Order: sequence, then structure tokens, then C-alpha cells
Amino acid sequence: MNLRTVSRLLGIVSILVGCSMFFSLPWSARFCGGDWEVERKGFFGLFGSMCICLSLGVLFHVWGRGSTKQMFRKEAMAVVALSWILATILGSLPYYLSGSQRMENVPMSVCDALFESQSGFSTTGATVLGNVERADLVPRCILFWRSTTHFLGGLGIMVLFVAILGQGSAGKAIMKMEMSGPGATNQQARIRQTSWTLFMLYISLNAILIVLLLFGGLTFFDAICHSFGTVATGGFSTFNLSIGHFAMETDLNAAYIEWVLIVFMFLGGTNFMLMFRVLTRREKSLFSDAEWRLYLTIAVAASLMVLLSGISHGDFRGDSSSAQGIHETLLSDFRSSCFHVVSIMTTTGFCTMEFEKWNGFSRGITFLLMFLGGCAGSTAGGVKIIRYLIGWKIAKQSVEQAFRPSVVRALRVSGRLVNKEIAWQVPVYFMMIGALFVVGTLLVLAIEPAGHWDNSQVRLEHKLIDVGSSVSATLNNIGPGFGVIGARQNYGSFTEVSKFLFVWLMMLGRLELYVVLALFYPAFWKSHG
Amino acid sequence: MNLRTVSRLLGIVSILVGCSMFFSLPWSARFCGGDWEVERKGFFGLFGSMCICLSLGVLFHVWGRGSTKQMFRKEAMAVVALSWILATILGSLPYYLSGSQRMENVPMSVCDALFESQSGFSTTGATVLGNVERADLVPRCILFWRSTTHFLGGLGIMVLFVAILGQGSAGKAIMKMEMSGPGATNQQARIRQTSWTLFMLYISLNAILIVLLLFGGLTFFDAICHSFGTVATGGFSTFNLSIGHFAMETDLNAAYIEWVLIVFMFLGGTNFMLMFRVLTRREKSLFSDAEWRLYLTIAVAASLMVLLSGISHGDFRGDSSSAQGIHETLLSDFRSSCFHVVSIMTTTGFCTMEFEKWNGFSRGITFLLMFLGGCAGSTAGGVKIIRYLIGWKIAKQSVEQAFRPSVVRALRVSGRLVNKEIAWQVPVYFMMIGALFVVGTLLVLAIEPAGHWDNSQVRLEHKLIDVGSSVSATLNNIGPGFGVIGARQNYGSFTEVSKFLFVWLMMLGRLELYVVLALFYPAFWKSHG
Repeated sequence: MNLRTVSRLLGIVSILVGCSMFFSLPWSARFCGGDWEVERKGFFGLFGSMCICLSLGVLFHVWGRGSTKQMFRKEAMAVVALSWILATILGSLPYYLSGSQRMENVPMSVCDALFESQSGFSTTGATVLGNVERADLVPRCILFWRSTTHFLGGLGIMVLFVAILGQGSAGKAIMKMEMSGPGATNQQARIRQTSWTLFMLYISLNAILIVLLLFGGLTFFDAICHSFGTVATGGFSTFNLSIGHFAMETDLNAAYIEWVLIVFMFLGGTNFMLMFRVLTRREKSLFSDAEWRLYLTIAVAASLMVLLSGISHGDFRGDSSSAQGIHETLLSDFRSSCFHVVSIMTTTGFCTMEFEKWNGFSRGITFLLMFLGGCAGSTAGGVKIIRYLIGWKIAKQSVEQAFRPSVVRALRVSGRLVNKEIAWQVPVYFMMIGALFVVGTLLVLAIEPAGHWDNSQVRLEHKLIDVGSSVSATLNNIGPGFGVIGARQNYGSFTEVSKFLFVWLMMLGRLELYVVLALFYPAFWKSHG
Repeated sequence: MNLRTVSRLLGIVSILVGCSMFFSLPWSARFCGGDWEVERKGFFGLFGSMCICLSLGVLFHVWGRGSTKQMFRKEAMAVVALSWILATILGSLPYYLSGSQRMENVPMSVCDALFESQSGFSTTGATVLGNVERADLVPRCILFWRSTTHFLGGLGIMVLFVAILGQGSAGKAIMKMEMSGPGATNQQARIRQTSWTLFMLYISLNAILIVLLLFGGLTFFDAICHSFGTVATGGFSTFNLSIGHFAMETDLNAAYIEWVLIVFMFLGGTNFMLMFRVLTRREKSLFSDAEWRLYLTIAVAASLMVLLSGISHGDFRGDSSSAQGIHETLLSDFRSSCFHVVSIMTTTGFCTMEFEKWNGFSRGITFLLMFLGGCAGSTAGGVKIIRYLIGWKIAKQSVEQAFRPSVVRALRVSGRLVNKEIAWQVPVYFMMIGALFVVGTLLVLAIEPAGHWDNSQVRLEHKLIDVGSSVSATLNNIGPGFGVIGARQNYGSFTEVSKFLFVWLMMLGRLELYVVLALFYPAFWKSHG
């Protein structure tokens, strides 16, 4: 392990995080509508964190100066994993130093801050903050920093700096580790150009969405924050009711805002390289990609299923007023089901209503969607559609082989041959995600005291589902789940140990297991081999 | 596809099932304590079914006379799958023809009968019968037939007839399909001798257990039925409270009976070839087998965890009297946790108390145990321990390969090399079981009307868990689950469609997917290739 190369790159990450904090500072100033008396602690907390990041970055960088730019796979994995851990720790400083409170008079603990920071970088969008609308509990500049972590984490912090700084073969190795999906990054030569392309596309999507949201009547602050949360498929909102807030304000067109968000969440879950190829006419349309077709099909099918079962069980009635006509009601119900299906599937986690109170079938579907995720090479978390596609083909082949042992078939997706090594990793990935989900759920079940769910028989029944959904929601980078972590709830009531576990689950999910798991493999740290 | 060979073998299965029915007939006679007025319909139902089986068997056999004994993989699969379906249908006749009632004045429907029959053959032990203690609802000879199906299904009906009739290469191909676990049957030459060995061991275990249960004070009838249910890891009991019944009868030593059953359930989940090699001193002890060691370790660890979490939540208090001393109480609690852990893990499904009312952690463990299963080559259902062992090794290798792409390692279990083809099927198997579980749960959620769980919010929460556990309990051949299918409940209240789905799930689980899934693969039925 070449530690100096690792150190130099970690230094760059620190500086990058520090610089990003700078952009959150203005939101504490009076000219942005903040109240200085209230915002002061936020400003100084952020400013202090920024100084720590920058000085740490310089230290790291100086120590690693002059190291080789050549990097092997092991170093690339170490860089990605360690820089992610470093970013999480640095990103948690503002919450802690500003003395933000997760509830009235309950300041955030170290675990709370780490949770919030990891949730931001991994674009999970799970929060421990009970009330984000009161600036005396959470200053607005801290809220802005929270959304900025989504922006940084969306494509992967490292992709950003590869885009900006290049790094040659090191950059290429890093890109491979941090972009999502099996074999997602293209193997073409100019890695810097690729990452630059992705980065520009990402910026453009954000810019367009900000403008569209401004048209919808949002303030500049809200537009930026929600845009960061949408394109990165994160899910942090600046309102306690998440997107449901806009339906409460009569001067806003909630339908317009929600449809815009549905479209951009969906784009956030689309393969960015595919989007780029379509934009540059190298590909005829998005439909030529088998993964994207399946992605769209599932979203539409799930929306319709949730709509039908929701209407027959009266799930949407609680939130929409009954004064509307049948036509408008149906449209608004469709919007609700569409919104939540896309939000959960792309692992964003925005909500407009308490979807955890839907009927069993709808909740079953929602739970499954959590494990779907978007396309490979998108900002979405989860398992990714392509793995299901490959998994399905492997399962079919394996049944055929049971009665035709000698037949060997090639595996094709969208007409392209899939490398057999990559293909066979897919069932292993499913196995590992399943195991992590199960072990995580059991651990949290054991850690959490039953009192959290009351002592009556009925409430205990809830614990199993609530805990399962919380593990799924963090491992797959979604955010909200059922029950105690439902649409209008938060993770604040979990014990510190559980929160710390969630921090790891979010990171495991975002980096697709291997990079993180390797850290726990003793041989990884041996210098030879 | 050589249909005449298939027909000849199906004929033998029919005759075998018919002959087995003959042994249930005496239990309806007065000399066995039955009341002829009540038992008459049972006797005639069974007798009629027997006649149908025998004549159908002769027809099949005559049509297939003179066909070749040579058989290819495809034919072997078809024989196993079709004979299983045929046995299920034939085995359901006695329930239907005898007019057995699943509740007072509710006779069993065709689906009920198929469910009960499949549950018996697949050694699931799930029942639709609400009251098995009243002979006017379910005649005793029908109860005996129910347990006989466990006996027939335990090793696989076909293994029985291979043992009796040989069949050369056909027998070998069939054995491979029907014995459980990946690559479980040994590849040695004399397949007939192997199956004969397994068969004798199976008979001996049953005989010993019957004697031990007679010592415990059970009647001959109960001893045989419970023995069939135990060694085959089935789970049908002749009492409504399952094994919990014995604790109610003061003249029986419930502790003795339960410990005997724990040991024999555990043996039923042990690899029969391994047991044989140990008995003939070809292997030093059971501990030399890595799978068995893990099997024992998990059973002990899970028992202790359930014991500790159960004591701290007061789970065992409801059933045991508080008049005992602390020492005896602890021992009885340990027996309870041990009994249910082994019962669920070996997929037997006997119960002594309502384990579905335990605390969330214990129920979480129980749910996981459902997916474990016993060893390969045992009578247990489930995924089998060996697959977890191989899966764990593959996962470890795959993490190592992430940072050492060039290293290739051999995979060893118990020092023996595992064929790479077999090893890589294991993650695929996990993936397929997971998918079946999820799809099954969603289907049942959609099929079952919510009214079954009342309309209140709290009850609907239960539906998700109850349905999930019912699918898991049938797919893994266990029997009881949580809530509406708990220890003292039954599957009677499910809709006909769900029951029919469960019939397939049980068969899929028992035959380990491939044989059944191939039936739905169009190419399977094409004559060429």
C-alpha cells in the first residue's frame, strides 16, 4: 500500500469538502433573509469546520507531496473508502460545532452528526432532525450544507475531483470504484473527459431544475436545496412535511412542482452516460437501452398497481380533499402513487403523504421497490435494475442447464455481450445484500429496546417491520421507511449504537459493498500480494 | 421425451401409493379402538382411493410395458416432477372421498385436499384441518394416512422404489433429482445399494423412535404418527395443540417426550449418508463433517439466543406454571427454546407453545431459521446448511477478488474440493429462492382480502408478516408460521387460490426448484435438444 499517494488524494478531498462549506456560509447572512442572532452559531460552526477541513487538507497534501500518480487497484479502493469515511467525519463537523438541535433542547450527538453527514453524502436522505423549519434549532446555513452534501455525494465526491484534476490511471481506477452498477463506467480511454461530461450533465440538470422550481414559486433557497436533493436522488427537504408541504401552501401549484420532481427524480435514476449519448445523438433514444426500458416499465407498472390497490382501499383519501371532481381526484391519486413509486424506486425518499399507512399490498410493493434502485451509472442507490436483468437471465440459463447440461449460452443485455465474470458476480451481490439486510435487521432488533414500540403485543409486531424497513432504507440509500421512520418521522429516536450501524449501512449501500467490505479483510492491509 | 418409460414409472408410483393406503385401513377397524359408525366413511374413502390408485397404476404400467430402462436427464426430471404431481393428486383422494371436514360442517374442498396431500408428501406439515381430535370430522384412518404421506415423502417416494426395484441408470438419475442439497448423492457405482442403505436407516430411525415414544406412554397410534412426522421432519400431529398436548396430560412425562423428539428431529435433519458412514465406522464421527458442525453450532447458538431474549421478555411465562423452582424453570425454558429452534430449523414444525407471540428478536431469529434447513441429503427442507457454507466462502472470495483480481482459489468444504460449477449455482439458488419468496408473498398479499385481518390499521400491519411467514413456511416445508397460521392455527382460512399457490410452493421447496421450474420452460417439452 502506497500510503503517500493515498494521503495526497485524501488531502484533495478535505480541501474539496472545505471549499464546498464556503458556499453555505452566505445563507447565514442577513441579505439572504436569515436572522443574524439566530444564524450566528451556524455561521461560526460552518466557518470553524471549513478551517479544519482546509488545514487538514493542506497537511495531508503536503505529506503526500511528490508521490507517484500511478495507482493499483488496492490503493484506489483504499482511497475511495477512506476518503468517504473522511468526508463523512468532516461533513459532520458543522452539525456538531453549530450546536444544532435535533429536538427542542436536544443537541445533536456525535453519532447524530455522523448519521446526518453520511446520509447526505450517500444521498440517503434519512434524517435525525425532528424540526428543520425552525432556524433556532437548525440554522439555515446548516440546512444548506446538508443539501450540499447530497450534491457532492450524488456522482461521488471522487468523480468530481477526477473531473477537475484528472489523475490519470489513478482517476480511472477511482472512477471504476465509485460509479454505481456492475461494469458501468465505459472502458474508453479518456477518463477525465468522461467524468467531465458526467459532471457537466449533473450540473445542467441541477440548473434546469432550479429554474423550473423557481417558476413554481419556490424561494431561491428552497429551489436549490430541493434540486440538490432531487437530481442526486437524495431526499433532504427543508420542510418537515417534505414535498407534502407545498400542497399546504395555497399560493403554490403543488401539482406542477410534484410532476417536475417526478421527472427529475426519474432522470436522476437514469444512466448518465446513456443520457449523454442520447443528447449527442450517438444513441437514437433512451428506449434502445434494455435497462432503461425495464426501469420505465417497472415504474409505470408499480404506479398503476399502487394506484388501483390504493383506490380500492381508500389509501389516498386521508390527504386529498373530497371537494374535487372524480376526474381531478383520479389525477391527483395517480400523481400521489407515481410520486412515491418514483421517489422510492430511485431511492430519493421524498414524500407527499404518509405512504407507510397504505394497505399491505401497496406497502409490500413499496418495500420491494426499495431494493430495486435506478440504473447503473446513475446517482440512485439500491441494487440497480441491470443486476435484476442479468440475474433473471442467469436464473433462466441455470434452469435450462438443469436439463441441458452441455449447452453453454452467451449472456447479452441490449445486444451487448456481458462478461461472464461480471455476470456471475450478480447472484453473489444479491446474496450479500440479502445477508447484510438480514444481519442488520437482527442486530437492530437486538439493540433497540422494546420500550420504543411500547410493550403491548400489537406494537411489538410493528417493531419487526419498522426495523426491517429502516435497515432497508439505509442500506439502499432511500431515507424514510415504515412506522417510526415513516414519511413524517425521523431516525432521532433510535439508540446511538443503531445510528452508528446505519452510518455503515449507508456507506456499504452507496459504495456497493466491495470497497467497504475489503477494509475488513485482513489481507487487504498486507503490503504484499 | 420417451413417454412410455415415463408412463411405466408413473405406474409404479401409483401402485406404491395405493399399497401404502392399505396400511391405513386397519386403523378404522374396531379392534384398533375406532368407532365403526364414525370410521365407516373414512374406511370407504380410503378403500375407494386405493382401488383408483391400483387400477390407474396398472393402466400406466401396461401402457409403458417393454419400454427401455435407459433414461436421460430430461426423462428423469419429468418422471420426478410428474410422479410428485401424480402422488399429490392420488394422495388427496382419501381426504375428499371420505368427506373429512376441516371445520364443523365445512367439508374439505378439492384445494384443501390437494394442500393437505402436498403438505404431507413434501413433509411440510401445514394443515387446513381445524380440529383433528374429533373422529367424526376427520376419521382416524385418514389421520394415519396423513402421517403416512410424511413417511413416503421423507426420503422421496422415488428413492423408496429405487431401493425396492433398482432401475439401473434410470434409478441413478432419479436419485440425483430427488435427494436434497447440491451434489448430495454420492457418485459411487451401486445406486441401488445406496438407496437401500438410506431406506433401512430411515426405517430403523422410525422404529427406534416408535419404541421410545411407546415408553413415554403414547398409544401405538400416536407413537407411529408422531414418529413419521419427526424423522421425515414433517410435523403433522394427531393433536390440535401439536406436541403441546403432552404437557396437558398429567400422566405423561412431557419433558422426556420433547427431548426425544428434539434428538430425532435433529437426526432427521442430518445427512443420512454421513450417519451411515459414521455407523459403519467409515467416518470417525459426525464432527468430521463441516456442514454438520455448523448445523449443530447454529442450533445451539440460536437456542441460547432465543432463551436469553425470551427470559428477558418473559416469553415463556405464559405456558409454564410458576410453581416450579428457578432451576426447573430454567431447564423447562431451555427445553422450549431448544424444541422450537430445532423444530423450525429442521423444517419439522412441531410446537409446544405459541412461538409466534415471542418478542421481535426471537421471532426474527425464528423467521431466519425457516430459511436455514437441515443438512444436504437429509429429510429436511429449506435451503440447507451446505449452501450457506459455500455461499459464505464464495462471498469471501469475491471480496478478495475485488482487490486481487488475478488470484484464483479452489473452494473446499470439509477438506474436499467443491466443483466450481456446483459452487456457482449456490448464489443463483439463493437468488431464486429469494425471488420466489418475494413474488409469492406479493401474490398472496394481493389475493387475500383484507377482511381476513379485520379492517383496523393495526391488523393490516399483521397481514404483511403473516403472509410473509406463510409463504416462507410452505416454500421451506416448515408448516406453522406467525399470526393467522401460528402454532395453534391452520391454513384453513386462506382463499382457495392462495391454497393452490401454496401447493406449488411446497413442491418447489421440496424438489429444490429446478425439477419443477423446468416444467414451465417451453424448451423442456421439445423432443430435440
